[in-house]
Amino acid sequence: MATDSPETHWSTAEEEIMEATYRALLEHGYADLSISRIADELEKSKAAIYYHYDTKDDLLVAFLAFAADRFEERVHTETGDDPAADLEHVVEKLLPLQPDEEQRQLQAVLVGLRSQAVTNETFREQFTQIDERLAATIRGIVDRGIDEGTFRDIDSSRVAEHVLATINGAMYGRATTERQSAAAAARVSLASYVDAELRRHRE
Amino acid sequence: MATDSPETHWSTAEEEIMEATYRALLEHGYADLSISRIADELEKSKAAIYYHYDTKDDLLVAFLAFAADRFEERVHTETGDDPAADLEHVVEKLLPLQPDEEQRQLQAVLVGLRSQAVTNETFREQFTQIDERLAATIRGIVDRGIDEGTFRDIDSSRVAEHVLATINGAMYGRATTERQSAAAAARVSLASYVDAELRRHRE
Repeated sequence: MATDSPETHWSTAEEEIMEATYRALLEHGYADLSISRIADELEKSKAAIYYHYDTKDDLLVAFLAFAADRFEERVHTETGDDPAADLEHVVEKLLPLQPDEEQRQLQAVLVGLRSQAVTNETFREQFTQIDERLAATIRGIVDRGIDEGTFRDIDSSRVAEHVLATINGAMYGRATTERQSAAAAARVSLASYVDAELRRHRE
Repeated sequence: MATDSPETHWSTAEEEIMEATYRALLEHGYADLSISRIADELEKSKAAIYYHYDTKDDLLVAFLAFAADRFEERVHTETGDDPAADLEHVVEKLLPLQPDEEQRQLQAVLVGLRSQAVTNETFREQFTQIDERLAATIRGIVDRGIDEGTFRDIDSSRVAEHVLATINGAMYGRATTERQSAAAAARVSLASYVDAELRRHRE
């Protein structure tokens, strides 16, 4: 069921390292991640990792690209003919209304990684690409809805940035505060915004 | 013009330390902040700071409370009779459409501080309070608009969380990516959302 990504191809060895990185991040968090711990998850030597990635930062940047590829593949296979349902699907994938423990930990890990982008140029570039790709995915769905006449003729770029900022902000709040119902409230309001602003049913 | 805060009172010495912390954060960023550098800005000894705060983290938590107090005071004195204008004012203060260099640096500093909240309980508590107070401020303005009949009878909590999440997400994006026009696009869409969803002009 894997979709060919037009941009990157991951070898089996790389994929295994990425999966091990994912497990190590969930288990130890970003702050306590080390190549040793990833090697433990991989059940191989550290050299097997250094063969592919020179530094921990290189590996983490690759991990972010890998995660973005995987996300796009899933969106590509899981969305269909209904732009409103597809938009809802992407929002739910990025900001689950009721995240399970793994999803919560992943969000915390992403916030930890992303904070490095304030000062680290390479991380910053990677998160620029990630947000760019996510915004393009949302924009594409909105444009499709406009073309098909399901959505009003609205500025799809602005809507996409609004939706993405709300998702990122709510995820950020979830990972950095105890306000666990805030993200769900923002999410419900976002859905009603999409419903009221995008759909044509008032016309 | 200072308004008495009901919760906290800052002594002159504390205020001076907070101002020095602010200048040191803007100059050196969160990662390179030290008590020495704050003492330099204060033009006093490190002991003068340790007399008030046991650790750098204690000082930073106090700084966040101080910044939140100042923000509330400003909102209190600068908002007036028109809920729609007041909401726009708060949004502009939190997410300037065209931030100057100081505002950009402040946002980067806040993202650096906030990332500590993923693992540090005390920072987490402080950011929980900050978001709680900001959401309450926005909710209060929306409730006032509903009472006065300017806004539709909408769920003010949800709207407040939506607005706050969008602001936080856009600020976060600004500090961690090169997508500098994304925040402005989200901001413009947020304004049109507020206009379309809250104001009664369609009825």
